[in-house]
Amino acid sequence: MRIAILGFGSVGRGIARALAEKDLGIVVTALADSRSGLIRPEGIDIEAALARKEETGLCGESGVAAPDIAIHADYDCLVEVTPTDAVTGEPALTHIRTAIERGKHVVTSNKGPIALAYAELQDAAARQQVALRYEATVCGAIPLVHAMQEGLAGNTMQRLYGVLNGTCNFILTRMSEEGLTYEQALLEARELGYAEADPTYDVKGIDAAIKLVILANTVFGQKAVLDDVEVTGIDQLTPDALRLAEEQESTIRLIGEIAPSEKILRVSPRIIPKTHPLVVEGTLNAVTVETDMAGEITLIGKGAGSTETASAVIGDLIAIQSRHVQGS
Amino acid sequence: MRIAILGFGSVGRGIARALAEKDLGIVVTALADSRSGLIRPEGIDIEAALARKEETGLCGESGVAAPDIAIHADYDCLVEVTPTDAVTGEPALTHIRTAIERGKHVVTSNKGPIALAYAELQDAAARQQVALRYEATVCGAIPLVHAMQEGLAGNTMQRLYGVLNGTCNFILTRMSEEGLTYEQALLEARELGYAEADPTYDVKGIDAAIKLVILANTVFGQKAVLDDVEVTGIDQLTPDALRLAEEQESTIRLIGEIAPSEKILRVSPRIIPKTHPLVVEGTLNAVTVETDMAGEITLIGKGAGSTETASAVIGDLIAIQSRHVQGS
Repeated sequence: MRIAILGFGSVGRGIARALAEKDLGIVVTALADSRSGLIRPEGIDIEAALARKEETGLCGESGVAAPDIAIHADYDCLVEVTPTDAVTGEPALTHIRTAIERGKHVVTSNKGPIALAYAELQDAAARQQVALRYEATVCGAIPLVHAMQEGLAGNTMQRLYGVLNGTCNFILTRMSEEGLTYEQALLEARELGYAEADPTYDVKGIDAAIKLVILANTVFGQKAVLDDVEVTGIDQLTPDALRLAEEQESTIRLIGEIAPSEKILRVSPRIIPKTHPLVVEGTLNAVTVETDMAGEITLIGKGAGSTETASAVIGDLIAIQSRHVQGS
Repeated sequence: MRIAILGFGSVGRGIARALAEKDLGIVVTALADSRSGLIRPEGIDIEAALARKEETGLCGESGVAAPDIAIHADYDCLVEVTPTDAVTGEPALTHIRTAIERGKHVVTSNKGPIALAYAELQDAAARQQVALRYEATVCGAIPLVHAMQEGLAGNTMQRLYGVLNGTCNFILTRMSEEGLTYEQALLEARELGYAEADPTYDVKGIDAAIKLVILANTVFGQKAVLDDVEVTGIDQLTPDALRLAEEQESTIRLIGEIAPSEKILRVSPRIIPKTHPLVVEGTLNAVTVETDMAGEITLIGKGAGSTETASAVIGDLIAIQSRHVQGS
């Protein structure tokens, strides 16, 4: 299978490195970062591109740009991992639309296009008989979409709830374990690289809400938008609240929940017993799905990181390769 | 897709009921219990067969037996859920061999054939270009094989460890929570239907060891047999041992572990911190896999039960249907 990788930041490089190290039958025929690109129908020398990127900051030639690759390059599947605005979905959305209209499969780690335009993109993909996969958009390395759409196929999904944001989980873990204030724990998260300089997107629950929209639309068949999610962040939580929870052998976690029968689509800090499987430590993510046949299934793993995201993208690529490109 | 169901105990009936209730595009063309069978190329009336089974104890006609169906009936996929000896693998093994040799796909919940003859059966399936799936043989409703072979495809599996037997987990949970002796907890498990009259198979770790052999051979590419597993059961554990663990904020669980690089293939009671994701309550199962890219992924869910087993079988059927029978 021939792929084009748009985006050569830590995720794109992680994918390229894994493909270079593992013999998966996947050839990279095009590659772009924000300022350069490379098209090689016979296959790109990944090691050389990685070295060039490290030395010069460019992966390819300055005359070649990501949109050109989406439109003109020769590939079976587009891997869309550009730095993309999660709210507008661009530039990933345009790249994905272009590839699908050309009859190409798409794998993306970008939340924006899937949260904003899933129905449109899925309709286009169905019309063009191509696959659109997005495992990496929710919960990083956890094969959550795979598990729900394939492993648990045939089940009716009744409810989903979980820890969808590792930054908040780290802050809450530290507040609970060490009695830190929110501000102290946030500072620690920043120092460790778990929180951005502007942490709004994480701590206000927006990141978790976007993931919830993706799951609501893709797994629960809803047509939700970000505004439909009732969101409360963790930035108003006090050490007192955590101490009170502690007295009941419980703790507080930021939980996203989808429960169609109760019209619940909500992100909020919740008190949960410490023995509950969703009480995970540090930056982990954890999700429980309630189903009609399988009962409750919980998945726990790393929700972020470039290698972890690369893992999810590669799982999607192999799924497409085995089912659509070579047959299986 | 047309399927033949061999075995009409609680699992077989659970599968049939789910297929009757859900519109999955799967038609049952043959059906057998231990004393009767039914072949209807146009499709069996499931509700009628369930009612007949309940009234008469027979699902079909007394002249039709499971082996006849495997050999002669018209189906795309055999569903092998007969009561089968986990040590000899019969009669399931013969049924599965027959179906594969006829070029039919196979889904089974029977551990014996997969633990005993995986390499042989997989080779035959590859030769005949059919699928052999067995999600229900390990950890009931948890889509563990799906997650490892598909969601985490591309990862190298470095280690797997987990709670693979719900009966033992229930007994250990009760010993830990209530300070019961092993005998008291076993009695309670029996009263609740979680342990057999002869609990040897569960409490000596044999059931967990068979599941470990299946995972070692299917996911880790080993050629292990039951004798290769170093097995210690839970029947010698004292309340004192649990009390000592408790003093270290830990508890004891029966853990199966596969670690190829250390040549570990072992089932044994282990002390683990109470905050560890594998410390699950009651009859739950929980498995952690360590991978090169996705890091550690943990899956938790019900490890037994007829509806839960049916869920796993149906997930496998849908996977076969979408990839092999209708294309996707």
